[in-house]
Amino acid sequence: MEIHSIGVCLKPGQPQTGGLLERLQKWALDHDVRVVVDEEAAHASDLAPTPRRDLCAEVDLIISLGGDGTLLSVARAVGTRRVPILGLNLGSLGFLTEINSNEMEDCLERLVTGDFEIESRMRLEVRVVRDGEEIAEFLALNDAVIAKSAISRMIDLVTHADGSMLTTYHADGLIVSTPTGSTAYSLSAGGPLLMPGLEAIVLTPICPHSLTHRPVVLDQGTLIESELLLEREQQATLTVDGQEGIELRGHDRVMIRRSPFPVEIVASPFRSRYEIMRAKLRWGER
Amino acid sequence: MEIHSIGVCLKPGQPQTGGLLERLQKWALDHDVRVVVDEEAAHASDLAPTPRRDLCAEVDLIISLGGDGTLLSVARAVGTRRVPILGLNLGSLGFLTEINSNEMEDCLERLVTGDFEIESRMRLEVRVVRDGEEIAEFLALNDAVIAKSAISRMIDLVTHADGSMLTTYHADGLIVSTPTGSTAYSLSAGGPLLMPGLEAIVLTPICPHSLTHRPVVLDQGTLIESELLLEREQQATLTVDGQEGIELRGHDRVMIRRSPFPVEIVASPFRSRYEIMRAKLRWGER
Amino acid sequence: MEIHSIGVCLKPGQPQTGGLLERLQKWALDHDVRVVVDEEAAHASDLAPTPRRDLCAEVDLIISLGGDGTLLSVARAVGTRRVPILGLNLGSLGFLTEINSNEMEDCLERLVTGDFEIESRMRLEVRVVRDGEEIAEFLALNDAVIAKSAISRMIDLVTHADGSMLTTYHADGLIVSTPTGSTAYSLSAGGPLLMPGLEAIVLTPICPHSLTHRPVVLDQGTLIESELLLEREQQATLTVDGQEGIELRGHDRVMIRRSPFPVEIVASPFRSRYEIMRAKLRWGER
Amino acid sequence: MEIHSIGVCLKPGQPQTGGLLERLQKWALDHDVRVVVDEEAAHASDLAPTPRRDLCAEVDLIISLGGDGTLLSVARAVGTRRVPILGLNLGSLGFLTEINSNEMEDCLERLVTGDFEIESRMRLEVRVVRDGEEIAEFLALNDAVIAKSAISRMIDLVTHADGSMLTTYHADGLIVSTPTGSTAYSLSAGGPLLMPGLEAIVLTPICPHSLTHRPVVLDQGTLIESELLLEREQQATLTVDGQEGIELRGHDRVMIRRSPFPVEIVASPFRSRYEIMRAKLRWGER
Repeated sequence: MEIHSIGVCLKPGQPQTGGLLERLQKWALDHDVRVVVDEEAAHASDLAPTPRRDLCAEVDLIISLGGDGTLLSVARAVGTRRVPILGLNLGSLGFLTEINSNEMEDCLERLVTGDFEIESRMRLEVRVVRDGEEIAEFLALNDAVIAKSAISRMIDLVTHADGSMLTTYHADGLIVSTPTGSTAYSLSAGGPLLMPGLEAIVLTPICPHSLTHRPVVLDQGTLIESELLLEREQQATLTVDGQEGIELRGHDRVMIRRSPFPVEIVASPFRSRYEIMRAKLRWGER
Repeated sequence: MEIHSIGVCLKPGQPQTGGLLERLQKWALDHDVRVVVDEEAAHASDLAPTPRRDLCAEVDLIISLGGDGTLLSVARAVGTRRVPILGLNLGSLGFLTEINSNEMEDCLERLVTGDFEIESRMRLEVRVVRDGEEIAEFLALNDAVIAKSAISRMIDLVTHADGSMLTTYHADGLIVSTPTGSTAYSLSAGGPLLMPGLEAIVLTPICPHSLTHRPVVLDQGTLIESELLLEREQQATLTVDGQEGIELRGHDRVMIRRSPFPVEIVASPFRSRYEIMRAKLRWGER
Repeated sequence: MEIHSIGVCLKPGQPQTGGLLERLQKWALDHDVRVVVDEEAAHASDLAPTPRRDLCAEVDLIISLGGDGTLLSVARAVGTRRVPILGLNLGSLGFLTEINSNEMEDCLERLVTGDFEIESRMRLEVRVVRDGEEIAEFLALNDAVIAKSAISRMIDLVTHADGSMLTTYHADGLIVSTPTGSTAYSLSAGGPLLMPGLEAIVLTPICPHSLTHRPVVLDQGTLIESELLLEREQQATLTVDGQEGIELRGHDRVMIRRSPFPVEIVASPFRSRYEIMRAKLRWGER
Repeated sequence: MEIHSIGVCLKPGQPQTGGLLERLQKWALDHDVRVVVDEEAAHASDLAPTPRRDLCAEVDLIISLGGDGTLLSVARAVGTRRVPILGLNLGSLGFLTEINSNEMEDCLERLVTGDFEIESRMRLEVRVVRDGEEIAEFLALNDAVIAKSAISRMIDLVTHADGSMLTTYHADGLIVSTPTGSTAYSLSAGGPLLMPGLEAIVLTPICPHSLTHRPVVLDQGTLIESELLLEREQQATLTVDGQEGIELRGHDRVMIRRSPFPVEIVASPFRSRYEIMRAKLRWGER
């Protein structure tokens, strides 16, 4: 992989990066690579900031510095571009930020010499249709969540798959998750773990009223459509990747399907996917 | 049981009661019993309305006409008084409204002749303390729920039992439930079923981040205290019996313990508790 | 599809088929199709029996008459051949026996005219290796289950995926299931529902000691290897499709991967996969 | 508490106790207390062995040296006597063996001076009735488990509570657990955590076919009766505390209720019940 420029996106509120940016600048100098930083990373270095969206447009590789939340927001800034993201964690291992900061130089060398792998992580295209018109569109790397507001009672979600009635969920909400998102909110709501490469979408209801509802795994080619039924006083929202979203109204339809634009993530050369799962979920301990 | 007056509370928006009120008035006339009705029941009859709280203060028996939600709101109006409630359902059997409307006269006869049982259902006393001062107090027949708002991330609830640290829940919320409430929201969140007579309180976390959290059943004498930790932008609410509540702030402490004031509910003479559970949960079917 | 001969396999102990076999013989006569029956079906008709394995070798279509268990055993008799199976249920709808017996003629007409769909259901190839030698091999349409004997304590299953350590399950057992099997035993053990067409394998632990174990969905190309560790007095067995199996010894390794030989099942032309799930799981009811 | 003699029961196969028995003998000499040891402990000391049942009959305090399994077997030897048991763990903290071996002397001093607490742990009386005759009886500190054999299909358990039909479980089995046992097998099968002092019995089905079955918590005064229905080829067993049991036949009835003979366990003076739960379940970690 030819790297002429690297963009750095830093988790907000973390001006101390323990010398990581200095190390990166040194490495970049040695390899004749330009470093571009976002506003947060500029605070932690002597470089001038570039807005994230511009940064994503002009670099060959993005380093996401923080946790899984930071990488999710970087993926959002990347949008439909195909720039690979290297997730370096500041502190503890994440499901998406698999590489420790002390492994940075080693990892960059491998990228330059081609001794690495990039995983294409499927994303969901999430559209909200109100009165026949599309009013919002999102890209989800983890999940799209339709959920009642805290004070409301359960909501009804009339849900179709490829035009066929699937079921009406009477629940606190519904999580529509990618395999990548199966280790996030869906897991807390009782969903299964899916390997990231699987061509699948998971529907995990949140606190369903009926005890017979279980997480359902659908083919990734499935078009999912969920219509929201609200009684008076009820409120619901759509949240994407836990970061952005909109308030929904009764009879809004949320249409979800695989996006043609995956996110490219540099896989850890140091540990397998299973090793990361074992470490994060503390398997082997009770 | 001597019955000189019966109060009737009707589910809002149900002016049609299928002749039930006429039948009740006829029965009352025959037995020299006075009938008092709330505003909703007044719409469905030719009687003048009495506000619910006044009604609860002056009758020997209350008939709750509707579903479990109606009975919960009647229990709230009863407050700390000891008036027995007869839950007649309009339509389908409820966990709390065990008696069908066509069984009304039979049931009233049994009440008059003493051939019946009253179940004392434990309630929870729920207090909110902010900056050292109590700012709200509630009585819960089903449950008290501390939960994040829809757009917020998970909240932290530092939870003590009788002054000893129990755990910090990092979750969507926490349900503190009576045995009566174990068939309601707690069940949807994965909680166990408790027989109503049990002297116990259940803590059921909602979508906990840690997979090792499980519902915990405590002795009913336990004082539960949960302190809410909020990060910027987060919001949370306390909801009691799914009907009333307040918005919480960071460091608010919710104190919960058994109330000395149970609710008196007329038990169905026609079906056992287990029969009601079987019917409601559709056991025996898959 | 050209049908010159139809084989009929009947659920054992069900000599009464309500005239179904007569109706089939009549239809076959009208369409110049030969009917071949297994031993059980011979008892319910005037035809001579053909052993199931021979029957499977010589017909163009097999009708499985019974429930899901009957179809599983027919699939076993079919082995690696590609004969389509039509699952007619005697009584109640099954996940695999989607077609009611009164729909038989209609369904056969559609088969003859080509107005139907056949689903290829993935199977698992299950091998047991002891002391370096393969001692048994099975084909599983639903699942392969490694489980402790009733009196034993939990067993340890050191489990690898494609040669990488996945985890050691300390549990009552482990279910390795196809998408087809996800509605069977795996569901009872807490597994997710997978659409039959998904290219995936599910690992669902049975009563795992660690609370952090969750069902894992792997790509169907994954080679799963589970080594059994037994302490003194412990016993374990491997069961395939709930029908056949062997006793295992300590250090036996069970190797599981996708079989190149799927089972061909005639899809119901009358109801969608989602409709069958809704009906079987009683969604929409509480 | 006056202690004139201490009995020591040691986990089998652990002749090395790291000098613990020497330390105990020294403490006993200083306090004029006699030490009696079981066969296993005799191997690890210079004392002559006394059979466990005799030992239980003649001492004022029993030290169980091992894990929770060892304490369960000691409780069995104690039978209906009221000798307190001090559970010292060899290595890692258990739910029942809450005291580390290096805390032994400190703990014994507290026992002598009265600065300690004894918890009465409820037990279950488990009877098997075949053809109207009782054929076996057990005492369970943790649980009684009725379960299918490994090769069998699900069994049917027609279950009554105080003579009223509760439900028919179609499942791998049923766990009837004390509050003490709620942290053991019942937890793995999805049961709730109960504080040890609760006056309750938990029924937790193992892999129930119906998704609407949930753990049920009953009053400890409830008489539970479960009749086993077996089809041909099926087999089932009753196991008590994971240690003893018998094979069951079709129509055997297992009758379970609270035993009048609890087990007396010395509570840890060093950590609360909640602290032990937190440590064992690794709450606060993910």
